[in-house]
Amino acid sequence: MNEEFFEYLRHESVSADPSRSGDVLACAEWLLGWLEDAGMEGCLMETGGPPVVFAKSPEIPGAPTLLLYGHYDVQPAGTEPPWQSPPFEPEIRLGHIYARGATDNKGQTFSLLLGLRAMLRDHRLRTNIRVVIEGEEEVGSPHFEEFLKRHQADLTCDAVVIADTSMVAADHPALTNGLRGISCFEVRVQGPENDLHSGMFGGAVPNPALALAHILTSMIGNDGGITIPGFYHGIIPPSTGELAGWESLPWNDAWFEKATGIAPRGGEKDFSILERVWARPTAEINGLTSGYQGSGSKTIIPSLASAKLSFRLVPGQTTDRVRPLIEDWFRDQFSRYGVSGEIVHDHGGEPFFVSPQDPALRKASRALEKVFHKAPTLTREGLSIPAAVMLQQTLRVPVLLTGLGLPDCNAHGPNESFPVSHMDLGQQVFCAIVEEFAT
Amino acid sequence: MNEEFFEYLRHESVSADPSRSGDVLACAEWLLGWLEDAGMEGCLMETGGPPVVFAKSPEIPGAPTLLLYGHYDVQPAGTEPPWQSPPFEPEIRLGHIYARGATDNKGQTFSLLLGLRAMLRDHRLRTNIRVVIEGEEEVGSPHFEEFLKRHQADLTCDAVVIADTSMVAADHPALTNGLRGISCFEVRVQGPENDLHSGMFGGAVPNPALALAHILTSMIGNDGGITIPGFYHGIIPPSTGELAGWESLPWNDAWFEKATGIAPRGGEKDFSILERVWARPTAEINGLTSGYQGSGSKTIIPSLASAKLSFRLVPGQTTDRVRPLIEDWFRDQFSRYGVSGEIVHDHGGEPFFVSPQDPALRKASRALEKVFHKAPTLTREGLSIPAAVMLQQTLRVPVLLTGLGLPDCNAHGPNESFPVSHMDLGQQVFCAIVEEFAT
Repeated sequence: MNEEFFEYLRHESVSADPSRSGDVLACAEWLLGWLEDAGMEGCLMETGGPPVVFAKSPEIPGAPTLLLYGHYDVQPAGTEPPWQSPPFEPEIRLGHIYARGATDNKGQTFSLLLGLRAMLRDHRLRTNIRVVIEGEEEVGSPHFEEFLKRHQADLTCDAVVIADTSMVAADHPALTNGLRGISCFEVRVQGPENDLHSGMFGGAVPNPALALAHILTSMIGNDGGITIPGFYHGIIPPSTGELAGWESLPWNDAWFEKATGIAPRGGEKDFSILERVWARPTAEINGLTSGYQGSGSKTIIPSLASAKLSFRLVPGQTTDRVRPLIEDWFRDQFSRYGVSGEIVHDHGGEPFFVSPQDPALRKASRALEKVFHKAPTLTREGLSIPAAVMLQQTLRVPVLLTGLGLPDCNAHGPNESFPVSHMDLGQQVFCAIVEEFAT
Repeated sequence: MNEEFFEYLRHESVSADPSRSGDVLACAEWLLGWLEDAGMEGCLMETGGPPVVFAKSPEIPGAPTLLLYGHYDVQPAGTEPPWQSPPFEPEIRLGHIYARGATDNKGQTFSLLLGLRAMLRDHRLRTNIRVVIEGEEEVGSPHFEEFLKRHQADLTCDAVVIADTSMVAADHPALTNGLRGISCFEVRVQGPENDLHSGMFGGAVPNPALALAHILTSMIGNDGGITIPGFYHGIIPPSTGELAGWESLPWNDAWFEKATGIAPRGGEKDFSILERVWARPTAEINGLTSGYQGSGSKTIIPSLASAKLSFRLVPGQTTDRVRPLIEDWFRDQFSRYGVSGEIVHDHGGEPFFVSPQDPALRKASRALEKVFHKAPTLTREGLSIPAAVMLQQTLRVPVLLTGLGLPDCNAHGPNESFPVSHMDLGQQVFCAIVEEFAT
């Protein structure tokens, strides 16, 4: 089983990198072949971007239908700090499979698919299954909403199952009823037309890297909050019941410090750490670029300085409302610092929320309890799955979010991993959920 | 004559780039061969870095000795914005030779050497000439002071001549009696151990790019001045006579805006533009690096953020005095923002100053007046030539700084150029100076 999973991981399906579009397509084709071998009837569905891998099980008239959603694209691997083993050459060390996408999302989804194959092989599948695995999740699923609308008839179902969030611990399952949304930008400040000699022009010519630093620091207030006017308007705070549940979880300051190597002093000073990560919006600098970055020195005033930014949004915020607030604020800052600049929108996704009272959520909870002999905790996560919102809004069915990865699996970072034993756990989870919905 | 100069320019003698050390050495060997062909006796002198090209003219006992200093290394070419022609494939367009090093310093020094070759060929050289052309000027001449001390006996002379500054205009020569010094650093702020998913950890983990932005903005006050305590202590302001001379020069705000494409609103608000560029110290961000810099988005909290910085120093400041002030200030800032960070010193060079009353300066002035039929203006420049200070301090003779490049030759930037006609001008300047010192 590991060898076929390793084949899946070896595809360098980096959707953010246009030069990898061939690898992305090859990955989709491999996955479709695997699903067909498992007994599904499938095809690649055009989207305008990488195709969606679609497959359905042999039709059981009158039976309920579950739609399994996942994504076969992955984040760029990055090179700093270095990976211990090459990111697209999976390797097992101490019970973990290391590779880009090992957890997010190849591993989590593939383990569920192994459950599906087992049920098909043993003739014990008593629901209809639709599999929808897309190739642009890591760049915000830009074609997925349109795809869902176009193929709504093929995608009719009673609930959507997704394994793309995180467990509390290896023996402690979670169901996730809230996710943050996202809105990504690049901000560019223009200095002189060309890079200039800092001796000949320093003291005369304004430095765009300094102006960018001023603008970025203005964005965050002394309380750690975002200063963009109106940004927090309309936020729905978590209920006291949700907050009480979160207090029993192990993710305290010490956990964050151990996981990241740094004291968790980021974000807003007046909120607890799980509120800050799950239920408060953030503004994060994802990257900085300006001037000379090679070895030694190059004594220039750079011509350009740019920052990549991502804003995480919470229930009550929408991308359509915050985007102009952010863009207008940056344009005001360019004027304030007397520089020309631009802010370019990259992609966005809405926050996600499911009521704790939802009946489908209760079914999924019972299924997980059967596997783990322990009821799952209702959690939120700070990350964004725009596709989850699109599925909820377009198909108008409950979207059930669970996870098979652990908080230290390093999704999006170097040395991403997935526990070998969770390949089996994922199979059990899939079978239990299917059986719960079949009864 | 252009073809042999083009051969010189084609050597990719980038001293900042360790991978180019072979090109740097090949450039030195080529230059030595040229000097020997011209009738000089020369050798490559070891320095611990790239060698110094040393050559001397046939000895004329009792005659005065001039030492010609220059450098054969160049700045990195850079790729943004792109060069109109490849930086190491010289090309003539509209009377200018375009190449990295065309002005700084291959062109300016080579034009003087053409004058030397002509005088040798015509047997009209009546002084002794020592040629010293080093290969590490662009990285701050780290081995040059030691080299000067070791070879002091070979370098005995009456004055040093350098062509590495700028003319006022093509018909308006300048002698430069002041230069700024420099002190270069890299500042690195450490965030989490690895790049982290900004959704999973945003709001908890402090962002090193934001901390770096805070520190960099703290470095500059509202008046545009540097806030590091004690930094301005001991600065010798320019005399009222010097200031009066500068007022008649064409380098006003409009000139700077035309040359750079941006209004010259940088630096300290309470000083004129030439004071800011020539006689006031600066702190410049030369580069920024953090996180993801590729196409699209990568929604991470970066593990590291760094800035390359150069401080320009003025007479009255020394690198030894300002370096600990700068380093201590940055360490305080790391504590203040609760981050771990480091500041790494790269290289430095002292400010340079010659009294307007110096007799050798008056001889050089007369020589330039003969060539241009116009007395040179006494100027300063904002750039740093550590070697000029080392020559002055070690050999204890007057160091005469003139220039053959123009302010818009774009030294250190893309599309660096040198006027074709200045190849001839440099020959005339060399001959006139030699003759002035011979009488």
